[in-house]
Amino acid sequence: MVIAEDLAREQRSISVAEFFEKNKHLLGFDSPTRGIITTVKEAVDNALDACEEAEVLPDIFVGVKRVEDEVYRITVEDNGPGIVPENVPPVFGKLLYGSRFHQIRQSRGQQGIGISAAVLYAQLTTGTPARITSRTGAKTPAHRFEVMIRTETNEPEVISHEKIEWDRTHGTRIEIQFRSTLAAKKRLLDYLRLTAIVNPHARITADIDGEITVFERASDEVPPCPKPVLPHPHGIEFGALKRLAAASRGTVEEFLVGSFSRVGKKTAEEMISLAGLKPSRKANKLDSNELKRLLEAMQAVRVPAPPAQQCLSPIGEDLICRGLEKEIHLDFIKARTRPSAVYGGHSFIVEAAIGYGGRIPPEGNARILRFANRVPLLYQQGACAITDCVSQVNWKNYGLAQQGLPMGPVLIMVHVASTNVPFTSESKDAIASIPEIEREIVLVLQELGRELKRYLSRREKKKLQDDRARAVCSIIPEIAAKVSEIVELPPVDTTPIEGKIMRKVVAKKRTVDGKVSIEVNNYTGKEVEIVIYSLSRDTAEDAVPRPDFVDSIDGEYNKVWRCALGAGEAWRVLYTGTGEGTFDLRGVDDGMKVVVDLDV
Amino acid sequence: MVIAEDLAREQRSISVAEFFEKNKHLLGFDSPTRGIITTVKEAVDNALDACEEAEVLPDIFVGVKRVEDEVYRITVEDNGPGIVPENVPPVFGKLLYGSRFHQIRQSRGQQGIGISAAVLYAQLTTGTPARITSRTGAKTPAHRFEVMIRTETNEPEVISHEKIEWDRTHGTRIEIQFRSTLAAKKRLLDYLRLTAIVNPHARITADIDGEITVFERASDEVPPCPKPVLPHPHGIEFGALKRLAAASRGTVEEFLVGSFSRVGKKTAEEMISLAGLKPSRKANKLDSNELKRLLEAMQAVRVPAPPAQQCLSPIGEDLICRGLEKEIHLDFIKARTRPSAVYGGHSFIVEAAIGYGGRIPPEGNARILRFANRVPLLYQQGACAITDCVSQVNWKNYGLAQQGLPMGPVLIMVHVASTNVPFTSESKDAIASIPEIEREIVLVLQELGRELKRYLSRREKKKLQDDRARAVCSIIPEIAAKVSEIVELPPVDTTPIEGKIMRKVVAKKRTVDGKVSIEVNNYTGKEVEIVIYSLSRDTAEDAVPRPDFVDSIDGEYNKVWRCALGAGEAWRVLYTGTGEGTFDLRGVDDGMKVVVDLDV
Repeated sequence: MVIAEDLAREQRSISVAEFFEKNKHLLGFDSPTRGIITTVKEAVDNALDACEEAEVLPDIFVGVKRVEDEVYRITVEDNGPGIVPENVPPVFGKLLYGSRFHQIRQSRGQQGIGISAAVLYAQLTTGTPARITSRTGAKTPAHRFEVMIRTETNEPEVISHEKIEWDRTHGTRIEIQFRSTLAAKKRLLDYLRLTAIVNPHARITADIDGEITVFERASDEVPPCPKPVLPHPHGIEFGALKRLAAASRGTVEEFLVGSFSRVGKKTAEEMISLAGLKPSRKANKLDSNELKRLLEAMQAVRVPAPPAQQCLSPIGEDLICRGLEKEIHLDFIKARTRPSAVYGGHSFIVEAAIGYGGRIPPEGNARILRFANRVPLLYQQGACAITDCVSQVNWKNYGLAQQGLPMGPVLIMVHVASTNVPFTSESKDAIASIPEIEREIVLVLQELGRELKRYLSRREKKKLQDDRARAVCSIIPEIAAKVSEIVELPPVDTTPIEGKIMRKVVAKKRTVDGKVSIEVNNYTGKEVEIVIYSLSRDTAEDAVPRPDFVDSIDGEYNKVWRCALGAGEAWRVLYTGTGEGTFDLRGVDDGMKVVVDLDV
Repeated sequence: MVIAEDLAREQRSISVAEFFEKNKHLLGFDSPTRGIITTVKEAVDNALDACEEAEVLPDIFVGVKRVEDEVYRITVEDNGPGIVPENVPPVFGKLLYGSRFHQIRQSRGQQGIGISAAVLYAQLTTGTPARITSRTGAKTPAHRFEVMIRTETNEPEVISHEKIEWDRTHGTRIEIQFRSTLAAKKRLLDYLRLTAIVNPHARITADIDGEITVFERASDEVPPCPKPVLPHPHGIEFGALKRLAAASRGTVEEFLVGSFSRVGKKTAEEMISLAGLKPSRKANKLDSNELKRLLEAMQAVRVPAPPAQQCLSPIGEDLICRGLEKEIHLDFIKARTRPSAVYGGHSFIVEAAIGYGGRIPPEGNARILRFANRVPLLYQQGACAITDCVSQVNWKNYGLAQQGLPMGPVLIMVHVASTNVPFTSESKDAIASIPEIEREIVLVLQELGRELKRYLSRREKKKLQDDRARAVCSIIPEIAAKVSEIVELPPVDTTPIEGKIMRKVVAKKRTVDGKVSIEVNNYTGKEVEIVIYSLSRDTAEDAVPRPDFVDSIDGEYNKVWRCALGAGEAWRVLYTGTGEGTFDLRGVDDGMKVVVDLDV
């Protein structure tokens, strides 16, 4: 029988670097192909965060270059504030080291793991150190380091360090090389494109194995950097309260006012009296029972929501719409930014958009774009609360087919911005199922669903009306003609009947005996100014009236007439032709016009 | 403008305890409800591992008790080998501490995070320490500790330590209390039931808030504890090779033979010569280039697969079938254990089972049971490679409806056993998408799909035959009767015709004028011994012959006749009755009998 002593000999500490070396898939290094994307993502996240903190317009270079058979060098260079030389080794050569972990504000990097994980992966697959160049200002030289991670201790190991000349006055450049493939090149460019969309103040230049792509900045305004806030009294847990109280030097009242957001003197007094404490007690002298009572009192007293404006930086409805329209041609787009909400003391804001039609493939599932703190999420769509919420919504209510996900030419974009995005793993691919966040996502999707439904039913109604109008315009004259034939009387003019039925501007084109006639009747109650287009191979040289403008395109002629029509007035043109081609009327709302090409 | 110095002031180390306190959802503590299950799971995993290592039949107690409003105390006690007193504080009060991380063998715990995460969660939500009692043998006293984790440093803090009397001679007991709810009680019992199924040598006694459930052991054999093996030369990465070589004291040849599994002298020589090295070189003197060549040579030389028998412990086809049949009534069950395979140098074995019919709900998606290293996976089904693979298989080929997942009364069980299960997060809920593992899962599911198809088509064929036989037996006599009527001759006996058509044992029941007759004809070529059952409200007191046995059940009478029938012989019974109820024949293979109830 194995006894406890034998087992004890095997028991020892595991360094966090050893842990993640063995579990590198947790950090997004599950395959060589994915390694490049994860590395670029972590480095670009850091670059954008640093530029935002320094209020600099980001100018980021991303390079991926094959150096030998299956080894690629990834370079990311920014014009951020740089890193002071003492901190370069731990920032790149130690997992769990950083500036943003303890701050309560929205940032892309949160954990101080990302870029050092890439360094770990590089040394594991190729044994080469990461090379970092950084300069903090024009008056200081640039420093170049070669850094590795001592896996057993998770401490940085500086392989070399020199001061060098660098043409940048401030910024950071990291070069890492590891075994990989460029199989995911398209996804890498997708990532950069989506990043550019939600960071329109950034210029990103990519050189992927010699192919240059520039994502130009669309805005010259640095978005305000989210400011750190104090923890909110609601949602703080016992252990955290105990730790904060132990570190405090003041009275309970000073402690509450000074350590929590949204707690003023009056609120603090209310909490203290509810907890049955003396306001003059020292916070660090409170015992466990008193702290428990204080915690309960803190939850019971009403406190305004955390100051989300300050610590969060949503993209905004306008920018979301403009970004998506730039990305893909759409017939309909609507965005919504929800008011800020709270889970477990962390502020968050959900914003979303829905797009329809245009160039979205009409078959298959909706396309879902997921973002967290302005970073696109590329992997593990199935594991993400956003996908879950999209499936939860009953899209049939909003006019879409649905099999789990909604189907058809639909694009759904969701952005979750938070002081602490709850990812399902360190690789930050998917958002965990937090009920408060899911509730907000479902609400925003339902709001957008209603907007989509309105659009779709308007479109449907318009289509129905058009179909009906087309039927009226083509059938009534035929009926009239038949009747005339039967009763042996000359045909009557049926246009007044059409007008009574429709009260719109009706444009009809028909071709009889090699003569094309276009007739426009204004059955509305007011004057309209219209433009008639007819694009065909017919030159219409004998047209009466003459077109105001003729444009020749690839052997076709676009004939344009302008005219003003009073209420009840009609306009007509006649020319020799075959009647093929297209024909349209502009200048009147879609809902107020009927265009009927009786030749088609 | 913020400058580098300002940013540098904020940069610091984050302890792994701080990291997981903030990201507790990564460890399975995303909600208070889930906390109980995660804690029980981690403690039971440890208990089973420890008992296996000590070759003890596990006897595990799991208690969940409400101590105040929303605070529950979770207790898990085992009869394992115990933990030496010096190691109790780090095992429970330090994340990333354990014995199984550095060993290459199948075990439930891998990372040394699980149970200390529960301690962290308890101190965060209630501020109370975990209480651990452990005893390593009859000759030593038991030790009781109260332990917390110093979050800032991830070091254990011993609140109290005393030697106590304990009636166990060896074992460990942990008591933890935290804020939670019992909303997931059913899932907790499911977890324990599934755990008992795949660990039939364990007795688990659960006391969930006063309700006792005992999962008795089904086997008194301790499964052999998987033995640690050396790393396999294929799949080792550069960084790991460099580290191993640096720690070696011998020649390259000694290093290869001594540090890797499946490498003998001959294989080592082949590798060394392929790398262009001298066998006498000291391994720790190899430079990066030489190591790179050695690594390539190690990959190029053929080496047998890792010794999976030794380090893995699959459940086995027989045990899987028996376990599942105990759990749920099934009409069909088949299990398959695949040969061992390798991903990134880690051995793994996939085994799976498919069940059909019985008590599985016939509507909706198939029920999927996922296991990894004999531990049931309860959460994140959608994020798991197992679920992915189930969806990838084209089940329509095997006779099932499918919408993503297969549908209908189907149960699919998959177990992945590995020296390093690649989970998607520390909470060990889902298996990551590793191509090698997915391939094995798909293969085993396809094998089982073919078995299922065979069963379903046999069933279908049998049904068709029965339908046809029923038609023959009911129509032929009617035709004969009609013909007799028309030709005005007495009715003929049609049974010989039935016999020619069917060559089976045919049992027919019909009721005419308040008399029930059951007739059995043996049209096969040999003697059969049969039992006839007729269950109805008829007492059959006047039956000729008398039943061999009558059983009265809730006002119904189950009448049983036995008889032996030679080839071509017939048997008949007649009694007064209504003919309702059910009727059956046993003793003959399903394929060789036709039972026709002409009254139904």
